Amino acid sequence: MALRDTHVTLAHGGGGRAMRDLIDEVFTAVFQPPGTEDQARLMTAALQEPGARLAFTTDSFVVTPLEFPGGDIGTLAVCGTVNDLAVGGARPLWLSAAFIIEEGCEIALLRRIVASMAAEAAKAGVRIVTGDTKVVERGKADRVFITTAGVGVIPAGVELGVAQIRPGDAVIVNGVLGDHGAAILAARGDLALSVDLASDCAGLGHLMQAALAAAPGLHAARDCTRGGLASALNEMAAEAGVAVEIDETRLPLRPEVVGVCEILGLDPLYLANEGRLVLFCPEDQAPGLLAALRSLPEGAGAVQIGRALPGPAGRVTLRTAFGGARIVDMLVGEQLPRIC
Amino acid sequence: MALRDTHVTLAHGGGGRAMRDLIDEVFTAVFQPPGTEDQARLMTAALQEPGARLAFTTDSFVVTPLEFPGGDIGTLAVCGTVNDLAVGGARPLWLSAAFIIEEGCEIALLRRIVASMAAEAAKAGVRIVTGDTKVVERGKADRVFITTAGVGVIPAGVELGVAQIRPGDAVIVNGVLGDHGAAILAARGDLALSVDLASDCAGLGHLMQAALAAAPGLHAARDCTRGGLASALNEMAAEAGVAVEIDETRLPLRPEVVGVCEILGLDPLYLANEGRLVLFCPEDQAPGLLAALRSLPEGAGAVQIGRALPGPAGRVTLRTAFGGARIVDMLVGEQLPRIC
Repeated sequence: MALRDTHVTLAHGGGGRAMRDLIDEVFTAVFQPPGTEDQARLMTAALQEPGARLAFTTDSFVVTPLEFPGGDIGTLAVCGTVNDLAVGGARPLWLSAAFIIEEGCEIALLRRIVASMAAEAAKAGVRIVTGDTKVVERGKADRVFITTAGVGVIPAGVELGVAQIRPGDAVIVNGVLGDHGAAILAARGDLALSVDLASDCAGLGHLMQAALAAAPGLHAARDCTRGGLASALNEMAAEAGVAVEIDETRLPLRPEVVGVCEILGLDPLYLANEGRLVLFCPEDQAPGLLAALRSLPEGAGAVQIGRALPGPAGRVTLRTAFGGARIVDMLVGEQLPRIC
Repeated sequence: MALRDTHVTLAHGGGGRAMRDLIDEVFTAVFQPPGTEDQARLMTAALQEPGARLAFTTDSFVVTPLEFPGGDIGTLAVCGTVNDLAVGGARPLWLSAAFIIEEGCEIALLRRIVASMAAEAAKAGVRIVTGDTKVVERGKADRVFITTAGVGVIPAGVELGVAQIRPGDAVIVNGVLGDHGAAILAARGDLALSVDLASDCAGLGHLMQAALAAAPGLHAARDCTRGGLASALNEMAAEAGVAVEIDETRLPLRPEVVGVCEILGLDPLYLANEGRLVLFCPEDQAPGLLAALRSLPEGAGAVQIGRALPGPAGRVTLRTAFGGARIVDMLVGEQLPRIC
């Protein structure tokens, strides 16, 4: 039976024929998961190599607006989970995708989101192999929420993690900071900002593979999503028991992002990114790592922004352009709700 | 820092310290995931055995009310995903858990749900190894939604699936039908039903292992969740290209469930279950399978309800107590929204 509806109704979540039609036509036809059983059945030689480990992660996405310059909630849902796998040194393999849909959601919107997910998955070399849909009454959700989980494989010998970070490590980011947060803010419209900004949303699997090949001594990487660079550095410094000093003059920031932040009283160090990561590696491997990052589009703007110091453990300091220093603390309150 | 709040605020989703405190204290302290990285890193010898396959599945849970006789949304979120793995012949190993929380949700409620999840995971022998939390504004969700994904391993030689079903197969269920659907309906209160019913919610991993051991020729199994037994049988019959005939006099139904259905004009064959599955096996292995199922509490009420026939493909027929027959079609509309 063909799907004749233009909007999702509660019947599309009921477990019967309407749900089957929605799933078959909007989701399965595009994702083409293997088999017809509820669970995907998968294997790869990479997982069976001695010393290989399975990486497993999940994220829910509740961004508003659902579509914005540079992507949509589907792009985020794929890139976010791919990146969570990639920063651990895993090669991302398979994703699940679960949709919570508000009654009344436009089916055309769902089709656009699914198309974004399929395109982003193809770019990242991952397959969306299993999924679920639920429908809730009008006013009990916000059009659509997506939760993805991801499975990847970490090859033998790859041991990335904050526990590897050492004083003296170079601290590197792969490009300009805060574009995603600023683009979402601008896209919300109610701030009457007219800036030409797009989200930095990107899958970083290939970039991480290049980084690992160029700098086998790479210690740790983490993507700078909610809470921005500042929160990622604070968490990593605390867990690693080191201090981190970053240099204001080296921070890659677009003038438009700085402008948005000045108008709104925000700090770009806390703005969310969806295609940016921070890497720690031994200082002597930094030039090779930077060259490898810059060889790919998603790392074209890579720069060293600072270094790890012996202590005090957990402290992140910013050296300002005028020679002063200020502590960059963990974000305490709420800067921007529903940024991802 | 200790969590002093009693209700979730938007700051708990912002990526900063409030979020970290909520995650650490409410989720991580109970689930105790391995490591401190965003992605869990796992391996098991079972996955590396020749011929083993990885099983991967996901479900979102939006049940209302969140707490009901026999369980809560956390029980469902663990059992539902464990069961999706188990019915494919997989041994469930690891779960992810992602929470979408409405601003204002009581933290005490979250703690109860998390405790249910941990208890159910322990019973099922699985670990909750990774997770996520997002917070949305008041009125943009309904207190809490949970999405779990699960990874398991299917050993070499286990090949369950609807493609294995053959005419003549015995059709077996593991206990009384419709308790979950009827219990949720009663728990909603607005129907003024005062029946003493509890959800059948249960993890079926151990039961499926017992089934596979007793009936190595088991062809297929599927859990009867949304849409009930009728929808599961319709999907399986259509995919397998067989007909299914079930016998009304053999259907295990509680009088209370039949009563609720009569009052509300519902058909118990379409009521949701969360601890019930339907199995297809060669007729000669049915006695052994039934004995194995009945040896465990979650299979104590196991009975053969019918058999597979050569055709017409996809047709499910009910032989009534009076010797007649009626077609049991796929559910078309919406019987009960937000049953799981």
